Amino acid sequence: MPHLTVEYSDNLPDYPEREALRALNAAVCASPEVLDEADVKTRFVRHASFEIGTAPAQRAFVHAQLRLLAGRSPEAKQDLAGRIAEVLRQHTPRPAGVLVQLSVEIVDMDRPSYVKERLA
Amino acid sequence: MPHLTVEYSDNLPDYPEREALRALNAAVCASPEVLDEADVKTRFVRHASFEIGTAPAQRAFVHAQLRLLAGRSPEAKQDLAGRIAEVLRQHTPRPAGVLVQLSVEIVDMDRPSYVKERLA
Amino acid sequence: MPHLTVEYSDNLPDYPEREALRALNAAVCASPEVLDEADVKTRFVRHASFEIGTAPAQRAFVHAQLRLLAGRSPEAKQDLAGRIAEVLRQHTPRPAGVLVQLSVEIVDMDRPSYVKERLA
Repeated sequence: MPHLTVEYSDNLPDYPEREALRALNAAVCASPEVLDEADVKTRFVRHASFEIGTAPAQRAFVHAQLRLLAGRSPEAKQDLAGRIAEVLRQHTPRPAGVLVQLSVEIVDMDRPSYVKERLA
Repeated sequence: MPHLTVEYSDNLPDYPEREALRALNAAVCASPEVLDEADVKTRFVRHASFEIGTAPAQRAFVHAQLRLLAGRSPEAKQDLAGRIAEVLRQHTPRPAGVLVQLSVEIVDMDRPSYVKERLA
Repeated sequence: MPHLTVEYSDNLPDYPEREALRALNAAVCASPEVLDEADVKTRFVRHASFEIGTAPAQRAFVHAQLRLLAGRSPEAKQDLAGRIAEVLRQHTPRPAGVLVQLSVEIVDMDRPSYVKERLA
């Protein structure tokens, strides 16, 4: 069930999305919270229309959001956020003169109403 | 106020988005929770950059997220998720050899801070 | 840390995204809740595949979602939603014959698991 979405600003050119996708899924699946590797669904979204702050500086961002069914401990959530941050730290381009902000957010999904199935 | 977003991986070619959009809105509006049909705002997002799990299998996903003002009962949320799942079950392509995962999530939106208006 | 995402339906042509981005960041940064202007990361997402309600009417939407670390007072959240709504009210196109819906949602992000850093 984990849904992972990574957004980034398109002033991070040549983001190695394929490599990062594989590394992210490997890192998340290595968590004891993930019982079936097939459940981890990750996507990258590149933003062409964005603005960071108000100062005339060169800034970029990469932001990951992991959505999990509610019930994980705070420690498990911190561990997962740390795994994701580590991968993004390694794969995110750092263009000269650009301040790159990295953030990772964990979201609890409502468990009783969640629907999950495999279509035959 | 319901906001419905359906994401899918682009290895589900020829997704009938127009038909699914109409069917989704009809299904959601038929819920007693929706008082004004005009409130239901649905969008499709197709993902070209995605990865599911870590095994070398052909996999696809379709994931719906419905955001509602907080206060609905668990039963009402389950009913809405079921309505959405039923439409997606009917409209989602099932390419040969591809395992398609379907999921539906219901999200409570913070009611006191929600702004809603119609621009004249 | 505030993450602001503005979605709109693409029957609002010539949306002045650049101007709106600057105005949104200025408005959000003017809030006493935002300590560092560089933290405000805003993006626009234009939707080509959407459906509003079930009636055969010309309808459009613009929807903003602001994600903040949990802990803000209800009043602070209402104030932020109001600032965002005011900017969108000013910048959103209003094509003749199209009913435009505006909404703003504030989301609390889980604080203990949030990761934030600047890449060197």
